[in-house]
Amino acid sequence: MNFNETLKAKRKRAESILMEYLPKEEGFQAKVIEAMNYSVSAGGKRLRPIFMEEAFLLFGGQGKQAEPFMAALEMIHNYSLVHDDLPAMDNDEFRRGQKTTWNVYGDGMAVLAGDGLLNLAYETAAKAFDMAKTLEEMKRITKSLQVLGCKAGIYGMIGGQAADIEAETCGTVSKDQLLFIHEKKTAALIQAAMMIGAILAGADETSVALMEKAAYNIGIAFQIQDDILDVTSTGEVLGKPVGSDEKNHKLTYVALYGLDASGRKVKELSEEALHILGSFRERNEFLEELVRMLITREK
Amino acid sequence: MNFNETLKAKRKRAESILMEYLPKEEGFQAKVIEAMNYSVSAGGKRLRPIFMEEAFLLFGGQGKQAEPFMAALEMIHNYSLVHDDLPAMDNDEFRRGQKTTWNVYGDGMAVLAGDGLLNLAYETAAKAFDMAKTLEEMKRITKSLQVLGCKAGIYGMIGGQAADIEAETCGTVSKDQLLFIHEKKTAALIQAAMMIGAILAGADETSVALMEKAAYNIGIAFQIQDDILDVTSTGEVLGKPVGSDEKNHKLTYVALYGLDASGRKVKELSEEALHILGSFRERNEFLEELVRMLITREK
Repeated sequence: MNFNETLKAKRKRAESILMEYLPKEEGFQAKVIEAMNYSVSAGGKRLRPIFMEEAFLLFGGQGKQAEPFMAALEMIHNYSLVHDDLPAMDNDEFRRGQKTTWNVYGDGMAVLAGDGLLNLAYETAAKAFDMAKTLEEMKRITKSLQVLGCKAGIYGMIGGQAADIEAETCGTVSKDQLLFIHEKKTAALIQAAMMIGAILAGADETSVALMEKAAYNIGIAFQIQDDILDVTSTGEVLGKPVGSDEKNHKLTYVALYGLDASGRKVKELSEEALHILGSFRERNEFLEELVRMLITREK
Repeated sequence: MNFNETLKAKRKRAESILMEYLPKEEGFQAKVIEAMNYSVSAGGKRLRPIFMEEAFLLFGGQGKQAEPFMAALEMIHNYSLVHDDLPAMDNDEFRRGQKTTWNVYGDGMAVLAGDGLLNLAYETAAKAFDMAKTLEEMKRITKSLQVLGCKAGIYGMIGGQAADIEAETCGTVSKDQLLFIHEKKTAALIQAAMMIGAILAGADETSVALMEKAAYNIGIAFQIQDDILDVTSTGEVLGKPVGSDEKNHKLTYVALYGLDASGRKVKELSEEALHILGSFRERNEFLEELVRMLITREK
């Protein structure tokens, strides 16, 4: 299989793990479960669970212990989209060509569907304990839960979303603030993915810290590349309208530093990330290729 | 100290534990943290953490291991109020005489503040692991986390909220549906409180199941009593408008079965709960008194 076929197979695998942990649409609360499953099943790159499993494999992880965390992280990513799309927030009617959750189920039900997914994420992650056989394994799962909470919460993703809303309300964004928003909104869940994969596989603290740094670089590079494509690509290639950042007066890295400097930054960040990924005893060539793909992508 | 003084002291203690786990209002995400703390600090009976600690004491619990869970459960209760009050849901502008969170911070920020509290609840509960010294203690915390997820999620509180929204949309509610909504919306978090208190203290499975049953009765009795007061009390005694259920066409136990049968049901449920609480090797007289107070209360 070439890289794209492998990626497709891995995406399919991440999806089937996720589906395993989705609840049945039954009982008096069937509607909210339907709304949750609707939003999670709507597609997406499934990058976070793939990153997690590849980090797990890089450090020699075996068995199924990463699976509940892979599903949990994708649920967290999806709940954040459901709430982000709400009329109270971005007021988006469509995502990935489909109606957004509130646009199908109403915004009250969409608030609850997001809450349901966030809660289910922690319920699901806690199921990893049922697979643990030793105190050492329980400690790894505990540490993973703590990393998940930290990177998803107010010192992670939610913190980034809140800073973003405030920046939009206030109208001015400093360079520090922009970097904070990118770090928290985009990089934090990739950090959770790569750190938890490493922790569950038994990587030492230094390696986990290096994975955190590599994931930071990947997340920021990914975001800047997104902003570059919004300026340089066409709607046809991208599959979504270009120029939306400028239209929405969104302050981006490109607007602050220009296209050339932004391109150089993406290259610098990703080279450092690849350098880290190449520095461990074992290598994961697919993971390295995935990083290269993400920052050279044209859509 | 008489009962009311003891209750006041225990409420103060629950509040100080909660405050210990609230985040500092600093950084680029200071505003969302301010909104979270605003909603949590607005008062309330703090019944759930009190129930948890009393169950912990009933089974001989010692040390501080229940504290992170006490704070976590109160955060979950409060996030649900923040989201419930949103214009997308109940559209309430005031709660406990104060402006609701969205009414102060805007509804986008209130969505995030609720998300932040829910996430922080799991982060906080997971901190109990840092206090565990043995594998047995880790297992109790794991079990408690699983109970928390179950009772707060789509098979617990969120399930009840979703069924409630749907019932309001559809306009008809069956008796089974009404009981489901009461069980999930009101009883589930009290069950979490009393079960987790027992589990952390090392109670056996039979005792935990009995506590689940007692808490179910207490929750349903509490809710029916609420509905009775809405009909029989005056606004002055209650401190909030009476007759609101009828005005809002809310189907209640009282509307379905009448006042007399409702009063008998409260008595029957609470007597059974008190019977269970009196059946263990040790007794907790304060807890029993608290149950008696809640179902004979006049406001």
